[in-house]
Amino acid sequence: MRKLINAPSDVVADALRGLAAAHPSLRVDPEARTVVRADAPVTGKVALVSGGGSGHEPLHAGFVGFGMLDAAAPGEVFTSPTPDQILAATLAVGGEAGVVHLVKNYTGDTLNFKMAAELADDEDVRVERVLLDDDVAVVDSTYTAGRRGTGATLFAEKIAGALAEEGAPLEAVAGVAREVNERSRSFGVALSPCTVPAAGRPTFELADGEMELGVGIHGEPGRERVKAGTAREIVDASLAAIDADMPLAGQELIVLVNGMGGTPLIEQYIAAGAVSDWLAGHGATAVRTLVGPYVTSLEMAGCMVSVCRATPDLLRLWDAPVETPALRWGR
Amino acid sequence: MRKLINAPSDVVADALRGLAAAHPSLRVDPEARTVVRADAPVTGKVALVSGGGSGHEPLHAGFVGFGMLDAAAPGEVFTSPTPDQILAATLAVGGEAGVVHLVKNYTGDTLNFKMAAELADDEDVRVERVLLDDDVAVVDSTYTAGRRGTGATLFAEKIAGALAEEGAPLEAVAGVAREVNERSRSFGVALSPCTVPAAGRPTFELADGEMELGVGIHGEPGRERVKAGTAREIVDASLAAIDADMPLAGQELIVLVNGMGGTPLIEQYIAAGAVSDWLAGHGATAVRTLVGPYVTSLEMAGCMVSVCRATPDLLRLWDAPVETPALRWGR
Repeated sequence: MRKLINAPSDVVADALRGLAAAHPSLRVDPEARTVVRADAPVTGKVALVSGGGSGHEPLHAGFVGFGMLDAAAPGEVFTSPTPDQILAATLAVGGEAGVVHLVKNYTGDTLNFKMAAELADDEDVRVERVLLDDDVAVVDSTYTAGRRGTGATLFAEKIAGALAEEGAPLEAVAGVAREVNERSRSFGVALSPCTVPAAGRPTFELADGEMELGVGIHGEPGRERVKAGTAREIVDASLAAIDADMPLAGQELIVLVNGMGGTPLIEQYIAAGAVSDWLAGHGATAVRTLVGPYVTSLEMAGCMVSVCRATPDLLRLWDAPVETPALRWGR
Repeated sequence: MRKLINAPSDVVADALRGLAAAHPSLRVDPEARTVVRADAPVTGKVALVSGGGSGHEPLHAGFVGFGMLDAAAPGEVFTSPTPDQILAATLAVGGEAGVVHLVKNYTGDTLNFKMAAELADDEDVRVERVLLDDDVAVVDSTYTAGRRGTGATLFAEKIAGALAEEGAPLEAVAGVAREVNERSRSFGVALSPCTVPAAGRPTFELADGEMELGVGIHGEPGRERVKAGTAREIVDASLAAIDADMPLAGQELIVLVNGMGGTPLIEQYIAAGAVSDWLAGHGATAVRTLVGPYVTSLEMAGCMVSVCRATPDLLRLWDAPVETPALRWGR
C-alpha cells in the first residue's frame, strides 16, 4: 500500500481535520462527522444535504458552499454515513424552507438517508429525497439495486444548489435535481483497482494490460473485462454505451470528463479531446465541459464520462455563481 | 503501463486538443504549441509567459487566464519547450508593456527561454526573466544546476499575474515574482515513481514500502531513500527541511499541499491536517491553504509542501481575482 495516511482507522477523521484547516468557509464537526457551510443555516433557503462513503473526494464535502451543498455527511471509506450523521447534517442546515437529500443509489445510502429523513420529520424539518442513478453500465451491482449513482451527482448538486440559492421552494429544488438525473448518464472505465486502507488489498484484481468497462466508483464489476485500449477506444465505448441508453444526437450537453483519482490531468485532457471528437462525429455538442478528478475512487486509474442534456434553464443554473473548495466560478 | 493515452508520441498534441475543447477562454495553437488567453494581447498590460515540460498539469497551461499567465509553452513530457515555441508564446501576448518569463530552474528551460528572449528582443519586445528555484531538497540535480523550481512557480504566477492585471510596470511585475521566489520553499516526497509514455518504464525504481525524500517533479533523486512513513512523518520531514533553510517560526504563510498526480485528494487533505499541526507546533500560521494536484509528475504518488512567507501586499495579490481553468476565485 503506497498511501499517504497515518493509520487506516484514522483516514476520514484526519482528512476532515485537513479540510477544516484549509477551508475557513466550512464548519467541520469532527464528532458528528458533518461538513457544513459556515454561514448555515441560510434563512429562508432550501438546504441541500448529500453524503456517502468517503474516498470519492472532492465529492461531497468539497462541494459544500455558496450555490451548491449546505452540508455533507462523509461516511467511512466506501461506507454509507450513519442515520445519526445524516440527521445531524440535516438539522444543522435545515429550516422552514425544508431540506433536499441528494442520495446516490446504493443500498446503504438509501436506507440510512431514509431513516435520517424520518428522524428529521420528527423534528418538524421537511425532507424531499432525490435519488441519483445515472450509471448506465449495469442494473444491480455489488451495493446497488437498480442503477448506481455516479457523475450526475455533481450536475444535480450544482444545478439544484443554484436554484435553491435563487430562493426557489422545496418542490422546485427537488424537481430540478430529478430532472437533471433523468437527463444525465455516466459510464466509467478502470485501468487499475484501488485499495481501501482498512482492507489493505485491492478491491478487485486487474492484470496489467486489462481494463474494466463500466466499473463502479467502488471498483464494483462493470460490463466486461477486456484488453486495455487507447483513450479514444475507451471514450468511444463509454459514449456508445451512454448513447444506446439516451440518444445524444442533436443534443446540447454539459459534459464531465472525470479522473478516477490515480489518472493524471494530462490524460484526462486526452480523454476530453476524444470526447469532443466523438460528439462532433455524432451530431452532439458539448456546451460546457468540466475536466478533472471530481468523483473519484481513491487512487483508481481510469476515467468516467458523464453527460447532462442541457436546457436553457439548466444551463443558466449551471453557469450561476458557485463558491466551494472544489468548484468555483462566476461570483 | 496503465495510461489513458492514444499513442506515446501524441500525448501532448492530444491533451492540447482536449484543453482547447474544454476551455473557450483559451486560444490553443496546435502548430506553434502555445496556449494563450483568448483576449490576448491585453493592451497596456505586462504579459506573463511560462512553460516547461508537460506532465505537470495543470501547470502551466491550466494557469493561463485573467489574473495569472497570458501564455504557456508546453514542451514534450518532461522536456523543455523549444525556443521557437517560447518565442511564439511571447510574441502572441507581448506588447509595449513588455513580457515576464517565469522560468523553472532546469538546464533546458533556462537555455531555451534565454534564446527565446533574445529573439523577442530582436522583435523589439522587452523580456524580463525570473528564475524559480524553491526546492530545498538538493543543490544540483539530474536536470539542474542549482536548486530546482517546483511549487513556488504557482505562487509566483498567481501573485505576479495579479500585479500585472493592476497595470504595474515590467520591473515591478518581475520584481514581485522574484520576491515570491525568495520568500518561498518546497519539499516533495514520492511514494511511487511515474512513467514517461515515450520511455515506457518508470523514471526510477521504488520498492513497495519505500519512499524518496526530496524527490524532484520529474522523479529526480532526492536526499534519501527510506522506509515509507506515515503522512505525519512525511509532512514533518518536509517542513523540517524547509524550516532548516528558511525559519518559519512567527511567519504567516501561504501554503500549498500538492498532490503529485497519483495520490487521491482524501490523502492530500490528510497531509494538509498534518501541515496544520506542524505549523501550530512551531509558531507559524497558514493564512491561506491550497490543497490539490497543482504541480504534478504524471501519475507519481506522493506530495509536496510549498510555503511562501506572506506580506500584506503579497496576500492582497494572492487574494485578487483569478480566472483560469485550474485556479478561479473572487471575480
